[in-house]
Amino acid sequence: MAQSPYQQLEQEFRRLHAFRGAASLLRWDAAVMMPRGSASVRGEQLAALESECHALLTTPRVSRLLERADANEAQLEDWQRANLREMRRERDRAIATPLSLVMRIARATAVAEVRWLEAKQESNFALFAPHLEEVVALTRDKAQVLSQALGLEPYDALIDGFSPGFLSAEIDQLFRVVSQRLPGLIRDSIELQAERPPLPIPGKVGTSKQRSLAVEVMRALGFPFDRGRLDESDHPFTEGVSGDVRVTTRFVPQEPFTGLMGVLHETGQALYDLGLPEAWRDQPVGRDRGMALEESQSLLLEMIVGRSRPFLTYLRPLLEKHFGVSGPEWEVDNLYRTLARVRRSAIRADADELTYPVHIMLRFELEKRILDGTLPVRDLPEAWSEDLEGRLGLRPASDAEGCLQDVHWAVGSFGYFPSYALGAFIAAQFHETLRNDLPELDEEIAAGRFGGLIGWLRENVHSVGASLGSQELIKNATGRTLSAAPWLRYAEGKYLDEAG
Amino acid sequence: MAQSPYQQLEQEFRRLHAFRGAASLLRWDAAVMMPRGSASVRGEQLAALESECHALLTTPRVSRLLERADANEAQLEDWQRANLREMRRERDRAIATPLSLVMRIARATAVAEVRWLEAKQESNFALFAPHLEEVVALTRDKAQVLSQALGLEPYDALIDGFSPGFLSAEIDQLFRVVSQRLPGLIRDSIELQAERPPLPIPGKVGTSKQRSLAVEVMRALGFPFDRGRLDESDHPFTEGVSGDVRVTTRFVPQEPFTGLMGVLHETGQALYDLGLPEAWRDQPVGRDRGMALEESQSLLLEMIVGRSRPFLTYLRPLLEKHFGVSGPEWEVDNLYRTLARVRRSAIRADADELTYPVHIMLRFELEKRILDGTLPVRDLPEAWSEDLEGRLGLRPASDAEGCLQDVHWAVGSFGYFPSYALGAFIAAQFHETLRNDLPELDEEIAAGRFGGLIGWLRENVHSVGASLGSQELIKNATGRTLSAAPWLRYAEGKYLDEAG
Repeated sequence: MAQSPYQQLEQEFRRLHAFRGAASLLRWDAAVMMPRGSASVRGEQLAALESECHALLTTPRVSRLLERADANEAQLEDWQRANLREMRRERDRAIATPLSLVMRIARATAVAEVRWLEAKQESNFALFAPHLEEVVALTRDKAQVLSQALGLEPYDALIDGFSPGFLSAEIDQLFRVVSQRLPGLIRDSIELQAERPPLPIPGKVGTSKQRSLAVEVMRALGFPFDRGRLDESDHPFTEGVSGDVRVTTRFVPQEPFTGLMGVLHETGQALYDLGLPEAWRDQPVGRDRGMALEESQSLLLEMIVGRSRPFLTYLRPLLEKHFGVSGPEWEVDNLYRTLARVRRSAIRADADELTYPVHIMLRFELEKRILDGTLPVRDLPEAWSEDLEGRLGLRPASDAEGCLQDVHWAVGSFGYFPSYALGAFIAAQFHETLRNDLPELDEEIAAGRFGGLIGWLRENVHSVGASLGSQELIKNATGRTLSAAPWLRYAEGKYLDEAG
Repeated sequence: MAQSPYQQLEQEFRRLHAFRGAASLLRWDAAVMMPRGSASVRGEQLAALESECHALLTTPRVSRLLERADANEAQLEDWQRANLREMRRERDRAIATPLSLVMRIARATAVAEVRWLEAKQESNFALFAPHLEEVVALTRDKAQVLSQALGLEPYDALIDGFSPGFLSAEIDQLFRVVSQRLPGLIRDSIELQAERPPLPIPGKVGTSKQRSLAVEVMRALGFPFDRGRLDESDHPFTEGVSGDVRVTTRFVPQEPFTGLMGVLHETGQALYDLGLPEAWRDQPVGRDRGMALEESQSLLLEMIVGRSRPFLTYLRPLLEKHFGVSGPEWEVDNLYRTLARVRRSAIRADADELTYPVHIMLRFELEKRILDGTLPVRDLPEAWSEDLEGRLGLRPASDAEGCLQDVHWAVGSFGYFPSYALGAFIAAQFHETLRNDLPELDEEIAAGRFGGLIGWLRENVHSVGASLGSQELIKNATGRTLSAAPWLRYAEGKYLDEAG
């Protein structure tokens, strides 16, 4: 029997999924396994796959099929209609950004990334500035064409590439609410914590011990090692597809919790990938709902659960079992104080839960101004320092610790930063509902039973895939669209009420 | 400036190379890293890449470009003309085998491979026979269409897919020459060796010790660990592309030389891949010259060099260093007797250098008869046993040790087996010339200096890529086309003259 236009589209997007899965595995391998000297060969393979995906989305055939499927939309089921919407979304974005622009950006960011690293090592922004200018110019071009195609403001069109369904005006509003309360919250909690600082955690813990603990925790959370792996890399990440998820972390002997927290963060994302709707796993509607939702899964496990007293109650005997440690430094209360420590720092990656949004708000404001031209690239270091001083009362010691600290802009990821803060707010909103829905949640976590927690996430987030918009998904799960209030309640409860 | 048709073709084949490199990495990962439960996802990714490669070769655009480039061939350089010839070869084979046939074969062999394994485990050929019949029928279809497209006999068209440039009539002739001398040679060498059997090698050697020895030997041979890796898998293999070569082996504690011999075998192939002409590495002319030549590189290192007295002289102190062993069992003479032991066995994979061609000749004869229909599939077990008895004087104890021992036919690899014997003959012919060209060869190897050996191979084989036909390459390197005489001289010298 002849296939309907919709069925033919499913087949095209199945190929797209296979190519993207192959590319994901190639990226994993590049970070974890690949010999040093093989980067250029790998670059060619990834570029070929990327241009193939672009070509697939932009063929007239796919657009014709989309038109014909649209005409028969009434005969489709809800999931199929949602799938069609996601297909259109991908097609629209691909057609708006011609391959020539994609490749110019790829070349410019490849050079800019190398120069950024050099500039950071020498702490000299001037070395990087001309390359950033070029990336900014190309990013403006991209934002412009996407803006026209999608009917969004240019910056919103960039955000849409990472976290569809969030507009910068909404993010502005969330950040305004948080900003009113955050400086006082940071100040008060630092004061409170200073009254009873944690005992320093002594000694080093070897990598293999840290790994065996991490694996036990991942198993308890439900990570299936027959459909996934844990490896080590310079920076933790998750790659792969729903049937084969690759998690990495970085174990540091002097920091016994760095590797585990990386594992919790990545396992949050991995469980999202693994819990996506199986029947739709090779279709656009079967993918995750973007970076902000992904980050919410990571932060819920790493920050809200992983640094909570119930989780640390579960963890304490495991530390004795795997690390062979005991004593007052390794008791729940001291671990809690250690892992919830609030400190003002110039470095985003070192920031705690409370100061983290500050770093994001700074970047959000500055990247908007860079893109609309009101902040010339050359003035970035000074603008950065001033903004940080206004928000946290400190200035970076150097460009390396200031505007050169992150790779994101060098690789053209403008519009990405807000996802981190959105993820934190979404996580808190989920968690508030979770505790209502599962009154025994804390007791279960303390006992190492994560079925309720993960089950709720699977039902309300993972299994939804991309069948709903971001705000719709959040509203379905929690009864309302995203608000900063749950995060503020969570933060105040944790850092003021319990801090003593 | 507009690109010429030839330049456009180079670009198309560059993409093909990138896709194949990606597929190769995916296969490596599947055998070495992939979680057990991820096979079906990986299968989809590989099928998508394979059908993409097929599509690329069969587009009217590529055929049009080939026609236009052919018309301007006179303006091309020699390498470019050779490249064009290899492009046409690939296009012709792809067009002759439509994707529907390729996919039918892929599905049939996927099932047949599973059934073959079950049948082998139960040693029951009847379980496998119907699946083999289906694979044979499809293989005949494939041979037929290729035969017409390439102007070759059907079986030759299959051989051409593995080892281009060898016809079954030539192989017949080589095998006839070898068969006349081989039974006597096997008998005599077994008798001679029985007079002074080797001392058994005692004890077990742990995997990490075996690995450190293997790495040192690979380094000495020139394997660049910044563009390649060594890992472990169930069966040794080599995957990857010229800039990123992945070698695997299997270490067995009770068999201290199994892993090393696997490493030598695979390093032979890896150095071939790594020595391919750099300027042509992403073009058809920059590929290896097929399975027989590849096997020649493997067998030259594993069999001729790796089991020679000079190599074992180099190896002996390394065994002390890495394994911490010494004593008469680990002396050169005893190692030599151990590693050159001739034994009649029903199993190809366990065979030594002398009996190996016997196993190949048997398969060569039987697969020709299966394909032309003179041997019905149901009669295979009996035909196998009779043929083996005639050649080696023994019958397999069961189907599992008889016609079910190899996976090749289950996966449709008819025409592959001759490559193994051709590789052995080619290796011996190269080695004879090498010893003439480099009179110090044995002394250098004994001193662990492999530069002369590998340099000769690079110059005469690796750097040639696919710019010459197989026989042309062999003639350029050794002064004559392939003959069985060098192999017979080598075998007689090693197993009769030196055996005492």
